[in-house]
Amino acid sequence: MIKAVYPGSFDPITLGHLDIIKRSASVFDELLVCVMVNSGKSALFSIEERLDMIRKSVVEYPNVTIESSQELLVDLMNRVGARIVIKGLRAVSDYEWELQMALVNKKLAPNIETLLMPSSEEYTYLSSSIVKEVASYGVNLEAFVPNEIIDDILEKIK
Amino acid sequence: MIKAVYPGSFDPITLGHLDIIKRSASVFDELLVCVMVNSGKSALFSIEERLDMIRKSVVEYPNVTIESSQELLVDLMNRVGARIVIKGLRAVSDYEWELQMALVNKKLAPNIETLLMPSSEEYTYLSSSIVKEVASYGVNLEAFVPNEIIDDILEKIK
Amino acid sequence: MIKAVYPGSFDPITLGHLDIIKRSASVFDELLVCVMVNSGKSALFSIEERLDMIRKSVVEYPNVTIESSQELLVDLMNRVGARIVIKGLRAVSDYEWELQMALVNKKLAPNIETLLMPSSEEYTYLSSSIVKEVASYGVNLEAFVPNEIIDDILEKIK
Amino acid sequence: MIKAVYPGSFDPITLGHLDIIKRSASVFDELLVCVMVNSGKSALFSIEERLDMIRKSVVEYPNVTIESSQELLVDLMNRVGARIVIKGLRAVSDYEWELQMALVNKKLAPNIETLLMPSSEEYTYLSSSIVKEVASYGVNLEAFVPNEIIDDILEKIK
Amino acid sequence: MIKAVYPGSFDPITLGHLDIIKRSASVFDELLVCVMVNSGKSALFSIEERLDMIRKSVVEYPNVTIESSQELLVDLMNRVGARIVIKGLRAVSDYEWELQMALVNKKLAPNIETLLMPSSEEYTYLSSSIVKEVASYGVNLEAFVPNEIIDDILEKIK
Amino acid sequence: MIKAVYPGSFDPITLGHLDIIKRSASVFDELLVCVMVNSGKSALFSIEERLDMIRKSVVEYPNVTIESSQELLVDLMNRVGARIVIKGLRAVSDYEWELQMALVNKKLAPNIETLLMPSSEEYTYLSSSIVKEVASYGVNLEAFVPNEIIDDILEKIK
Repeated sequence: MIKAVYPGSFDPITLGHLDIIKRSASVFDELLVCVMVNSGKSALFSIEERLDMIRKSVVEYPNVTIESSQELLVDLMNRVGARIVIKGLRAVSDYEWELQMALVNKKLAPNIETLLMPSSEEYTYLSSSIVKEVASYGVNLEAFVPNEIIDDILEKIK
Repeated sequence: MIKAVYPGSFDPITLGHLDIIKRSASVFDELLVCVMVNSGKSALFSIEERLDMIRKSVVEYPNVTIESSQELLVDLMNRVGARIVIKGLRAVSDYEWELQMALVNKKLAPNIETLLMPSSEEYTYLSSSIVKEVASYGVNLEAFVPNEIIDDILEKIK
Repeated sequence: MIKAVYPGSFDPITLGHLDIIKRSASVFDELLVCVMVNSGKSALFSIEERLDMIRKSVVEYPNVTIESSQELLVDLMNRVGARIVIKGLRAVSDYEWELQMALVNKKLAPNIETLLMPSSEEYTYLSSSIVKEVASYGVNLEAFVPNEIIDDILEKIK
Repeated sequence: MIKAVYPGSFDPITLGHLDIIKRSASVFDELLVCVMVNSGKSALFSIEERLDMIRKSVVEYPNVTIESSQELLVDLMNRVGARIVIKGLRAVSDYEWELQMALVNKKLAPNIETLLMPSSEEYTYLSSSIVKEVASYGVNLEAFVPNEIIDDILEKIK
Repeated sequence: MIKAVYPGSFDPITLGHLDIIKRSASVFDELLVCVMVNSGKSALFSIEERLDMIRKSVVEYPNVTIESSQELLVDLMNRVGARIVIKGLRAVSDYEWELQMALVNKKLAPNIETLLMPSSEEYTYLSSSIVKEVASYGVNLEAFVPNEIIDDILEKIK
Repeated sequence: MIKAVYPGSFDPITLGHLDIIKRSASVFDELLVCVMVNSGKSALFSIEERLDMIRKSVVEYPNVTIESSQELLVDLMNRVGARIVIKGLRAVSDYEWELQMALVNKKLAPNIETLLMPSSEEYTYLSSSIVKEVASYGVNLEAFVPNEIIDDILEKIK
């Protein structure tokens, strides 16, 4: 039984994240989506709100579990007994940062492997920051985030 | 039981390829290393020679199998019943090409996922072409290819 | 009246090229699609075949004209009286090459401007080379080239 | 009559921006330079100051108009009746961000096209941030910004 | 006698910086490591602390001197009578930024040359920011910074 | 006395190469320009022709010497007693390739350092291939190669 972990800020979850979740859940036995809490980075949504929006978005995937963590990624991996980290990949700048983090994590825990999953073409443009920016202009969010969480975002942005 | 496929030309296998094989074999249940035969691309080593050099290099990994294929990658995947393709990732140019191929394959077979595994830092510089180039100058190949195949390469280059 | 020129090899035209043509034709008054003949680069299709496939693909765009040229791009521009060159843009490697060519052309003819149009997301993976490669495996080409030219390609590849 | 829009922060306008303005104004019938006001991004110069510096710099281009906007780019485009957005392009990181924004805008308004104009080689190094940084060291600004606004910048920096 | 200058923030010095220092010191006659003080960028360590950590790390290199400067880089170069600036190079994003700064400096002082030294492969993942991030999780820092300064960092992070 | 080596194909030398030579010669005590002969790569000009064109172009730089070599770069370096390799840097693709070669060379000879010199902005677009391509269209070559060798190129292209 192979379990993969998909870590991120998910501030908020987008259709791009959901696509990675759906595809990972379909090729691995189990997928843990984990909201990583980084004290140095300020977020728009609280951890509880972010977990709640993810929960609403993944109800149809039975092998997906959700959690938040203040640990270093490698400590989380060891605690939950998983060895594969999944990261989505859109642009060259993603690629560099993810490569750098993958090498740091490998240094800290040589048994952990980071695997990069290319974004589906229809989501290469999408990020949480862009969602927050367009939401502030009152744009219809259907092409950007799961339907289930549109109201949560609109309420927060107001 | 999750099986992954690692396709490539392996003309010849390098320590960089072997690193991807070792790491993939350790996180998946089964790994198929497949020499993809592309009629449009000329190779230095014959398919048999390439398979033979891979075979010598992976003897210590019991869950690794080897084969060659003239099929389209997605046809191979369907035939062997695997859904995960593993590709190594070194530089930006790798990244673009692999991303492009991943999207084409997704178009041809939506149930196949390509996962990119970052090279270990000590092999980011390494490719089959570089091995062939330095071998032609009579350089010691220990830092480049598995010990087991150094003689095969020297004999061929002569 | 502003006329733009879309130069390329079109060996063969893909849905990605057609998307650039459609979008350019809709924002400019006139668009000239030009098959640039480069003696140093070998092509699968003859110039006549390439022009013919483009012709079949653009019948519904009345402000698109088609031609082939053996001139330097800047000579073509001056002859047809156009100052805007349109190039499609998919990946970083496209970007570098197009940037380099744009600077050379600017050197040769300072009044010519090259404008880069980002590929629609559904075609970022697509190129003439990929079409030729997958066609050789007998793959259904509907997701890759205009319907009107599928038979032309299949006949050629045979 | 084809109108293009060149949006940006222009905090302050540089010789690189002016080069894009001059070249765009020469190939389009009309060019609107628009200071986009983004509440989330802090600027050194006020909107009025930025408009004023642009105004001083473009007096010799009769088909250039200037305005500021707090709208989403696509709303601005629809209001002024333009379909072409011009963005300057210097480096790979520009390219990725502009590509991402072009795709978001295409999603929001499919009839708007973003065209990327490569920087002239002598301005590939230039950005508003670099101008502000070197200005703070008392460097001569002639190689960086239009002569007309050097005093405005020096006064502000003081 | 050729003197090179290696400027940076060194907040704090990492094994990656030390590698560049060691290699530069071995091919040039003299190397000046200079902590550049940029009032617009906040640092974790004071200038004195940063100089002190560098000093402890380079004791074995007799031709390395250390200093801090609030000048523009080109003014520093002229004052110390050096014409070669050394910068380390890890990723594409480094490359773009360093290229841009090299061109600005060339504009300001045509006789100064910036030379980019590729990171050793074992340090391509390393940056001062990553050191500060992992240090905050209590990770063993031996793979990241010189042994001599581990205690300084731990004390500061506490 | 510090000697640097600038290796390349120089098929033919361009104004971009000459710029790197001039700038390197001005910061190092001695510069050796070396035409590297690579049996696997076909060239338009013979080695003698290439050396001759370089010779004509660098007459005014007394500390520049010229030679050709069929050795591996690291063997050349050891033979001539130099430890610094200079490579010009224009685009991201240059950067990756040069980085990869620098790491291979470091593996083969740890005491050799490759330093990358950013192209002057006016030559970022220039390469030997582009020179050969535009020359074949009868374009004036003054903006591309040293005046001294224009006739040599025209004669060859004919």
